Amino acid sequence: MFPKSFKKLIDHFASLPSIGPKHAERLVLYLFKQDKDKIADFAETLKNLKVNLSFCKKCFNISERDLCEICLDKKRDQKTVCVVEEPLDIIAIERTKKYAGLYHVLGGVIEPGKNGGSNLKFGELENRIKKENIGEVILAMNPTTEGDATALYIARLLKPLEIKITRLARGLSTGGDIEYADEITLGSAIINRK
Amino acid sequence: MFPKSFKKLIDHFASLPSIGPKHAERLVLYLFKQDKDKIADFAETLKNLKVNLSFCKKCFNISERDLCEICLDKKRDQKTVCVVEEPLDIIAIERTKKYAGLYHVLGGVIEPGKNGGSNLKFGELENRIKKENIGEVILAMNPTTEGDATALYIARLLKPLEIKITRLARGLSTGGDIEYADEITLGSAIINRK
Repeated sequence: MFPKSFKKLIDHFASLPSIGPKHAERLVLYLFKQDKDKIADFAETLKNLKVNLSFCKKCFNISERDLCEICLDKKRDQKTVCVVEEPLDIIAIERTKKYAGLYHVLGGVIEPGKNGGSNLKFGELENRIKKENIGEVILAMNPTTEGDATALYIARLLKPLEIKITRLARGLSTGGDIEYADEITLGSAIINRK
Repeated sequence: MFPKSFKKLIDHFASLPSIGPKHAERLVLYLFKQDKDKIADFAETLKNLKVNLSFCKKCFNISERDLCEICLDKKRDQKTVCVVEEPLDIIAIERTKKYAGLYHVLGGVIEPGKNGGSNLKFGELENRIKKENIGEVILAMNPTTEGDATALYIARLLKPLEIKITRLARGLSTGGDIEYADEITLGSAIINRK
């Protein structure tokens, strides 16, 4: 029914998380009604997404340069590293303005049956702690079964290094997602970390 | 917090209907993790959305050529025109396989206070009915207040032409959207049109 090029764009949108086929149809129809310039700008920005950006070589946050803005900011507490699952978690934590240390993005959690964590940045974290003068590691995984298991794994991995290891206070609702926590809850979870 | 190019793409996604800022962040992060080739293909398809496509000069459906596939299909009933609000409504009606006539896309409905309908294809509809040998016009507006008002307007506009004018049977739930109707309900609404 749809012209082929239309159908192809619908398929692209429908392949994104939380966008169903009907929603994708509406999005493409909406775009089709927009200015040519707006669409061209959208397409150009999308095309350059990976051209201009990569991951920070130190903490694996999204970055325009080799090192991200947070790693380059010498005013931040260089002795504390907060370990998170995804770059979006950094945004959520930064919004609370209760944390001024560094980060380390794992890139996910250990999911039994799916991956053993070989794609996650555990080795890189261990090396950082050995090389840099880190005094405390905050484990800020999501409060889920997989997040807990991953935190436990890291705690054991880092135990020989004899540094302070803390977790965010369990004010977070179990089964939830750090990214969607409100700023006050997330902020007090940072302050009450144990 | 986000690199500028990242933020810009988030803004583009957040400008689409039914996509909030948090959802847009997730979409961009998801895309960022995809293959360069997949992103390039997505961007290319988006860029060419308007290059390859325009509106059918006769019925204003989306089309790759001057006339859309439905208008070019001589096997279809050339004496019946179904007037719809949007091209997506055509898809929904075609899916029912209960209609084999032609279409006319208005491009929206009359929204009092917003537009008086000057951007809608009323004149083009009137001219088609005068020129082509049309025997019946089916008004398939959404069963909303605006849809009803628009249908009433068209019925009055076409009255002097003395052709059969029908509306889809009110099996459709009032306040709903044709595009989301299930095929059976929509199919019987076509058959029981009055």
